[in-house]
Amino acid sequence: MNFNVDHSIVSTVVSELHKVCIARSVIPILSGIKIVASKNGLKLTGGNSEIFIEKTIPLELNGEKVVEVIEEGSVVVQSKFINEILKKLSGNVHVQADLNNAIRIQSDEVVMKIPGFCAEEYPKLPEVHAQQSVELPLGTIKEAIQQTIFAVSKNDVKPVLTGVRMEFEKGKLICIATDSNRMSRCELPIPSELNKAFVVPAASMLEVINLKEADATILSILQEGNLLVMETEHTKLVSVLIEGNYPVTQGLIPTGYMSSITLHRKALQNGVDRACVFSRELKHNNVLLKLCDRTTISISSSSTEMGMIEERQKVVHMVGLDSFEITLDGKYLVEALRGIKEEFVEIQFNGAMKPIVIKPAQSNTYVQLISPRRTH
Amino acid sequence: MNFNVDHSIVSTVVSELHKVCIARSVIPILSGIKIVASKNGLKLTGGNSEIFIEKTIPLELNGEKVVEVIEEGSVVVQSKFINEILKKLSGNVHVQADLNNAIRIQSDEVVMKIPGFCAEEYPKLPEVHAQQSVELPLGTIKEAIQQTIFAVSKNDVKPVLTGVRMEFEKGKLICIATDSNRMSRCELPIPSELNKAFVVPAASMLEVINLKEADATILSILQEGNLLVMETEHTKLVSVLIEGNYPVTQGLIPTGYMSSITLHRKALQNGVDRACVFSRELKHNNVLLKLCDRTTISISSSSTEMGMIEERQKVVHMVGLDSFEITLDGKYLVEALRGIKEEFVEIQFNGAMKPIVIKPAQSNTYVQLISPRRTH
Repeated sequence: MNFNVDHSIVSTVVSELHKVCIARSVIPILSGIKIVASKNGLKLTGGNSEIFIEKTIPLELNGEKVVEVIEEGSVVVQSKFINEILKKLSGNVHVQADLNNAIRIQSDEVVMKIPGFCAEEYPKLPEVHAQQSVELPLGTIKEAIQQTIFAVSKNDVKPVLTGVRMEFEKGKLICIATDSNRMSRCELPIPSELNKAFVVPAASMLEVINLKEADATILSILQEGNLLVMETEHTKLVSVLIEGNYPVTQGLIPTGYMSSITLHRKALQNGVDRACVFSRELKHNNVLLKLCDRTTISISSSSTEMGMIEERQKVVHMVGLDSFEITLDGKYLVEALRGIKEEFVEIQFNGAMKPIVIKPAQSNTYVQLISPRRTH
Repeated sequence: MNFNVDHSIVSTVVSELHKVCIARSVIPILSGIKIVASKNGLKLTGGNSEIFIEKTIPLELNGEKVVEVIEEGSVVVQSKFINEILKKLSGNVHVQADLNNAIRIQSDEVVMKIPGFCAEEYPKLPEVHAQQSVELPLGTIKEAIQQTIFAVSKNDVKPVLTGVRMEFEKGKLICIATDSNRMSRCELPIPSELNKAFVVPAASMLEVINLKEADATILSILQEGNLLVMETEHTKLVSVLIEGNYPVTQGLIPTGYMSSITLHRKALQNGVDRACVFSRELKHNNVLLKLCDRTTISISSSSTEMGMIEERQKVVHMVGLDSFEITLDGKYLVEALRGIKEEFVEIQFNGAMKPIVIKPAQSNTYVQLISPRRTH
């Protein structure tokens, strides 16, 4: 193997792969990055037990020559090491590997010789032959993931809750995440008649968010068995799926309400964030939302050690009964509000013991539920 | 106590003080910030066992009114808490404390009530009455500290080596730091005939570097017994000094050399930094500098696990014998080079078993020594 590659491009790709590579493994080759040089350019692969990422560096990018392959071949190199050394180089990088997998890297006056592994011993990615793929702009799917992923369960008691559920129904994709105390649900129209549902590990979904490619890039999604393949022009992600029975979420979202108030989203988020400072001692972040009158809401919290905070905010619009008093986990509420981009947010109340509904005002495609805290 | 203060100013001051406050203390008041409101403005104090910092917020700053004192008084408030809550406020902050030290903070529509402590119970800073103070521009003293502090010892075996030694001799100030394997020495001309020497804890020196005031601000330095007071217009630092016998460093710096080479400082620093990647396994960072001929130097390192790296750099200027081959801790060398601002650096060699001298070319006021590594 023998090739030249542009430094900034290869070091970006390697640092992206390095993040998913296993840091330390009994089998050293598993913490490596596989490099394949062919007449079409370079292909680099790295991964862990949940996800593998394959990145392509073509011969030309935006009309500029970035790779020159002098001799085809392949090798595996320790990810931590190649990542670190590439960061400290600049200019053109010349990589050579001999039949013993000894690698020689040269950049200007700097020469390195490092041991490599035989690429044949690197695990082969399973092939997925599913017929039906869904194609979506990367920006759209990123947004749907960002609007739900924070609500996944952070502990492994119910593994299926640690992932984001993707439900394909004719003409739409629904993303759902829940940790039993809160739920986030986002619905997108898609040009597909696919009908299936699966749960993707949160870590794999994060890798989709981390993709550096333009929002307009098309991401194709393909599922078969317990594997999910997501692919753009230069990147292929192969993730396992989480097996298990996902709780039924249909019907959880109430169709009516006792009262509904509309508030400034950003102001509410800041107010609840402040209140959280005062409610940390029990690790509960209990924050009380209480309607003072039809035009004012009070956000408050208190703790014996730290004292109390109270602030009032204007209600923009109100429908229904005057009673509205609920104690919530303030951190959940802040995260829910952060997922919303719109200026105004609607909060629907169905009694102090029922979950509240949080959604952008005048929209039903993005809905969140948060269960109240019992305070006694 | 009752005052109004500009949010951005008070939150900057509190966050600076918070960094030196003890995080958790058996005596809660010791992890607090003392606030004194008087007709001249506010005075805030925080600290730990090594250093106390007192910050003044005057009634006016740059012609703008920033404090309005309605009623004089004082109180102590938990530092962690006040720091966190101030970050989440904006605009004008109104602070009131009653006779029971209960504090009420209001900013716009946000009201907080928090418990405080009696300011009388906060430790009183010792007074220093030394007659002779030295006055220096803050920027100058910051630079001298930055050029030496990295060389202090990182372990407590010899406590006196964990500090920066300041030696005042007639007309000059010498800052020295050493951990026995390397030494950094910086000399400044000063308009003072003071003659004394003391060792300041590195943590206190860092607080001088962290001061946000302009480089031209005058810092006055005053020492008495085991205390050092450093003061600018709005900040007063009171630090303990480290007692003990500082090693004699005079005479350590060789007056001649076998050979001397001048190199590009930044290129050398990058080269040694790269070489360090390959020499990490023994925690030794062994890097070999070797003269190839009178115009070229080779920087190399190797490890059985990682392989080897070698690069060549041009020698800008060379005096003396052709023999130059020494193994050093590359990390020490990188830190030494980072302290130098000049474009070219001179390295003086006195044999493979003697320390090398590193200094800006054509200057003798900033000199560093690094002992070689024994490789066998």
